[in-house]
Amino acid sequence: MSGSLTVVGLGPGNPDQMTPEALAAVAAAEDFFGYFPYIYGLNLRPDQRRHASDNREELARARAALEMAAKGGRVCVISGGDPGVFAMAAAVCEAIDEGPVEWRSIDFSVVPGVTAMLAVAARAGAPLGHDFCAISLSNNLKPWEIIEKRLIAAAEAGFVMAFYNPVSKARPHQLGDAFALLRRHLPGEVPVIFGRAAGRPDETIRIVPLSEAESGMADMATCVIVGTAETRIIEREGQRPIVYSPRSFKGAET
Amino acid sequence: MSGSLTVVGLGPGNPDQMTPEALAAVAAAEDFFGYFPYIYGLNLRPDQRRHASDNREELARARAALEMAAKGGRVCVISGGDPGVFAMAAAVCEAIDEGPVEWRSIDFSVVPGVTAMLAVAARAGAPLGHDFCAISLSNNLKPWEIIEKRLIAAAEAGFVMAFYNPVSKARPHQLGDAFALLRRHLPGEVPVIFGRAAGRPDETIRIVPLSEAESGMADMATCVIVGTAETRIIEREGQRPIVYSPRSFKGAET
Repeated sequence: MSGSLTVVGLGPGNPDQMTPEALAAVAAAEDFFGYFPYIYGLNLRPDQRRHASDNREELARARAALEMAAKGGRVCVISGGDPGVFAMAAAVCEAIDEGPVEWRSIDFSVVPGVTAMLAVAARAGAPLGHDFCAISLSNNLKPWEIIEKRLIAAAEAGFVMAFYNPVSKARPHQLGDAFALLRRHLPGEVPVIFGRAAGRPDETIRIVPLSEAESGMADMATCVIVGTAETRIIEREGQRPIVYSPRSFKGAET
Repeated sequence: MSGSLTVVGLGPGNPDQMTPEALAAVAAAEDFFGYFPYIYGLNLRPDQRRHASDNREELARARAALEMAAKGGRVCVISGGDPGVFAMAAAVCEAIDEGPVEWRSIDFSVVPGVTAMLAVAARAGAPLGHDFCAISLSNNLKPWEIIEKRLIAAAEAGFVMAFYNPVSKARPHQLGDAFALLRRHLPGEVPVIFGRAAGRPDETIRIVPLSEAESGMADMATCVIVGTAETRIIEREGQRPIVYSPRSFKGAET
């Protein structure tokens, strides 16, 4: 008798940005797997159990959760943001794909959430207002040449870009290299947004031109949005400027 | 004395996928602007006022909302999904940018939501599990050649793609043309997901190979996700298959 596994997105961190569906999924489960801060941030009942693990152990965590569900458990795997965007949903799918056939009969579901780029974009205005892409700058799982190829393709085709995993202790240079590459393909005035803890009390939103963007402006928890030649800034007296990408294509010079 | 304007994302349509922040923003406002079905779907108090308009009148709607806020109103502009993704946030920013300088002092904010591609992806597994892009197939506001350029760039660079506004009465051919173009740049086995009303009682999720994808499989309210050569399908007995894009780049032939 196999149980259930639900991958739940908590949203960007502000409890007001977590959906009722995610709350209900947490209430219905018995065992919780995820990265330490997410698992210890959950409000659980005494009968619910925490299984926290390190950030870099996603596949092992997915397998442990699937094993428990295969034995009949009601299991939640917890993600920040949306679980389908550079988070736990793909890791669980990979583990099912490579695992024993019994894992395929587990009642598997994913509860979506507000992903970081949407929360950061909302605080800046509407920088994702036209076609855009999301790129993980981590080269743990793909070669840096592929990331470079995607950055150039996105810049040349006029996509706004959102970067996830922009920097880490093990990868201090990637974001700076990405900015240097993009400066060869985009005008220096293109707005870059560094958004951290969007919607939370410790939020920081910083807007700089691409020509001045530096990797030191981001940390692991920052989502970076790079505009296009079409992206505009509305200056306001006494308030942060609004950054938006118009819905219409006007053919700005790149 | 200028008032406030909040652009609120209702999420994909299931009330359980609307955030408490969005609910609170609705409760705090007096006047509501938006597309008919969103405005008439809101639970409002007798003192709250509806100003519904047609789908194709986004800029006029944004201006009317800003005029009311400039006079001191507490105004909400309502979007489905996330307001920053092919929805009302960019239209309001455009109106501010081109409008009278007083509009810049309105207390302007955006409340993010779960956008359609995240809801559809969650129901399919994790098709957005690696780098992806979102493209509006509407050529009302940009030339079709730009859309073609972006489709080719995304296919060649290995981005999963989510299509918004895939078809309409006025644009019956675009989606079919996009599939035909992509078949020249991607293997025919690449999974295509047609997701409609994800998370709602009338949900439909259909998965077909790119070689068999047709525009008739979508309508205005469908979000279409096109995988990459890396995207995989896990077949399951008696259940819908799981579609996911692995986090690692394995270098599949395109």
